[in-house]
Amino acid sequence: MSIAVSPLAPTNVPEMPVIAGVRLATAAAGIRYKGRTDVLLAVMDKGTTVAGVFTQSKCPSAPVEWCRARLGRGGSRGGFARALVVNSGNANAFTGKTGRQATALTASIAAKAVGCGPSEVFLASTGVIGEPLDATKFDGVLGTLAESAVPGEWMNAARAIMTTDTFPKVATATVKLGKAKVTINGMAKGAGMIAPDMATMLAFVFTDAPLTAGALQALLKSGVEDTFNAVTIDGDTSTSDTLLAFATGAAAANGAPRISRASDPRLKAFTKAFRAVLADLAEQVARDGEGARKLVEIIVEGATTKKSARKIAMSVANSPLVKTAIAGEDANWGRVVMAVGKAGEPANRDKLSISFNGIRVASRGARDPGYDEAEVSAAMKNPKIQIRIALGLGKGRDRVLTCDLTKEYVAINGDYRS
Amino acid sequence: MSIAVSPLAPTNVPEMPVIAGVRLATAAAGIRYKGRTDVLLAVMDKGTTVAGVFTQSKCPSAPVEWCRARLGRGGSRGGFARALVVNSGNANAFTGKTGRQATALTASIAAKAVGCGPSEVFLASTGVIGEPLDATKFDGVLGTLAESAVPGEWMNAARAIMTTDTFPKVATATVKLGKAKVTINGMAKGAGMIAPDMATMLAFVFTDAPLTAGALQALLKSGVEDTFNAVTIDGDTSTSDTLLAFATGAAAANGAPRISRASDPRLKAFTKAFRAVLADLAEQVARDGEGARKLVEIIVEGATTKKSARKIAMSVANSPLVKTAIAGEDANWGRVVMAVGKAGEPANRDKLSISFNGIRVASRGARDPGYDEAEVSAAMKNPKIQIRIALGLGKGRDRVLTCDLTKEYVAINGDYRS
Repeated sequence: MSIAVSPLAPTNVPEMPVIAGVRLATAAAGIRYKGRTDVLLAVMDKGTTVAGVFTQSKCPSAPVEWCRARLGRGGSRGGFARALVVNSGNANAFTGKTGRQATALTASIAAKAVGCGPSEVFLASTGVIGEPLDATKFDGVLGTLAESAVPGEWMNAARAIMTTDTFPKVATATVKLGKAKVTINGMAKGAGMIAPDMATMLAFVFTDAPLTAGALQALLKSGVEDTFNAVTIDGDTSTSDTLLAFATGAAAANGAPRISRASDPRLKAFTKAFRAVLADLAEQVARDGEGARKLVEIIVEGATTKKSARKIAMSVANSPLVKTAIAGEDANWGRVVMAVGKAGEPANRDKLSISFNGIRVASRGARDPGYDEAEVSAAMKNPKIQIRIALGLGKGRDRVLTCDLTKEYVAINGDYRS
Repeated sequence: MSIAVSPLAPTNVPEMPVIAGVRLATAAAGIRYKGRTDVLLAVMDKGTTVAGVFTQSKCPSAPVEWCRARLGRGGSRGGFARALVVNSGNANAFTGKTGRQATALTASIAAKAVGCGPSEVFLASTGVIGEPLDATKFDGVLGTLAESAVPGEWMNAARAIMTTDTFPKVATATVKLGKAKVTINGMAKGAGMIAPDMATMLAFVFTDAPLTAGALQALLKSGVEDTFNAVTIDGDTSTSDTLLAFATGAAAANGAPRISRASDPRLKAFTKAFRAVLADLAEQVARDGEGARKLVEIIVEGATTKKSARKIAMSVANSPLVKTAIAGEDANWGRVVMAVGKAGEPANRDKLSISFNGIRVASRGARDPGYDEAEVSAAMKNPKIQIRIALGLGKGRDRVLTCDLTKEYVAINGDYRS
């Protein structure tokens, strides 16, 4: 299936700098696709720490279980990593014992290629589910990749992990840690967020900052809250969602201090930059939502708590009726009221106000007195739509990104396998 | 907008018998539609009891608030009714104080027309939201309707309450209560379940059985659990959903016993018939789901509890990826695994089995050894698709009805207002 690049794709792709201690290589292993790369090997220097957050699914894929086990305590502790192997085309999910065997075999092939223990190998797979993954295909391939890995292959790496994505997603930031310059590079894939077929969300972030695994894990956990966890395409959650962060520590050679706690005040600028990279990647995922023609930002203010604001924002963001209205360029605030009402969170109809792209359409439980259909309709032509919902109850505020629901989404997901 | 009748519409429409104590009339009041009826008046004899269940939305419509107040204690007590006024074309939702004034005015016009108190008048509105409802349009109309109301107008009544529905929905049952024959008639509307625009779910059930309001309320509350509450079109909940039940008690004249408790053993056959009417109407709502081409039944077995089974079934039923796959006649069990996994309920991947229309496609955490793509693909051509999910954990079981998600759904809801 050939799909044109999303009209919401970023127009500027950043130059991706080298990260000392990380080398990348890609290959076409023929997992499922023909004529394109489908395997990424990232090789990290000794002492690289790793942290991860994963799908909340009760039916996770075999690679998710593998990574969780490596990180210990269900993935919450962090650990050390020498290699990351990502394949596209097959998710190795719902593959039973063969799935577990495939992860073990892949890790052992990678460990031999890189010269480390299998427990230092991290894995992520994306693609069809329920199909056994033939890990023997990695034999030879990973050895060659380990030899040919070089520091500058970021765009090729981002391309190799794509499935139904219409553009590669990368982000970068450079920031001071102590007196040393450190770099953060990230890549992501995900389009039909967050589907198990060909559109699982995967993201990998690398830095040369010297962070302990514990600090990195804490940074990652708090970082996803308002970035990746605040994006939804269709409310569907993959069995394979994986976000891994790696810190090589190479910047210590330039005088960057070693950081062992995420709350260390020296980490302030880094934390901000790290979150910006996550936010950038997460927004790109929304911009590549399957069939998306509009990027939709939902801001909820005046809720009783931030948590309540998040629930209401997600209820609006996942409502098929709201999303189809936006696809139709219709400022249908009635459906927004409906989605607020169904969230089950505190809301008072007679205090509720709603704006589309800065134009207030409803206030205090009724249509805004100054409502002008023509003005609002013109605003809805914009490729970015902001829905602002003021509840008037408290100080809880949150923001969620999504996209519209188009006939193309149905076509992509209805016609996909057949 | 002209839409062909749903291909899932029932082929047999029942003859609707008279219910002693209920008279019906419809009119074209010009609320929004042209050239069709848009007001229904039902006149009930003195002593008619009433019960109701309503939307769980935190932003309910003015008529929902009106009915709840009449029934007392948030609608849980039941009461007496002499009239029901239903209009289509305007939902009188999110209309602030004017909305409350419109319900009061409508009730007072109806009360005068019928010769009762305003608190014995029940109201339901469906249509666009946020538009003030001009209740003065009912002046004169309701008086004429009260005079012309007759017992046999069931099909016309079911037509007058339609909005984006493609066919009128009625159901009937006749059953013994004591030694007397009693009748239950119902009508419903709802298509884009459950949208606030033109597709709110409304249902009205009438019987001549002599039931107290308390018994009727208990019957209704338990009756919706596995019928109306087990249907979803798009997971969206209207501000206006209303199900009212009326019992005229006229069958007492034929010797039917007066029943004051839903648990009365004499009510057993009646309860069964009452639920069958609710189930029939609820299924018709799913069959008229906006853009629906497939009726989808989701059965979850082996869950830890019935409640857990319901949550999993709803997670599958509301998954856009599952619904688009069915629209594409694709037995994509991977997406079913995804939706089971995201429900957050106890599930063990390695015990999970999934069937489509009786053909097992996945068992114990992997593709079924006997999986035959051609056989499954042929089964998916059926207009009715049953997905059976066996969790293998406990005895919890539940069943939910939904429909597929087609390009027509997006067209109907994206192009609706514009």
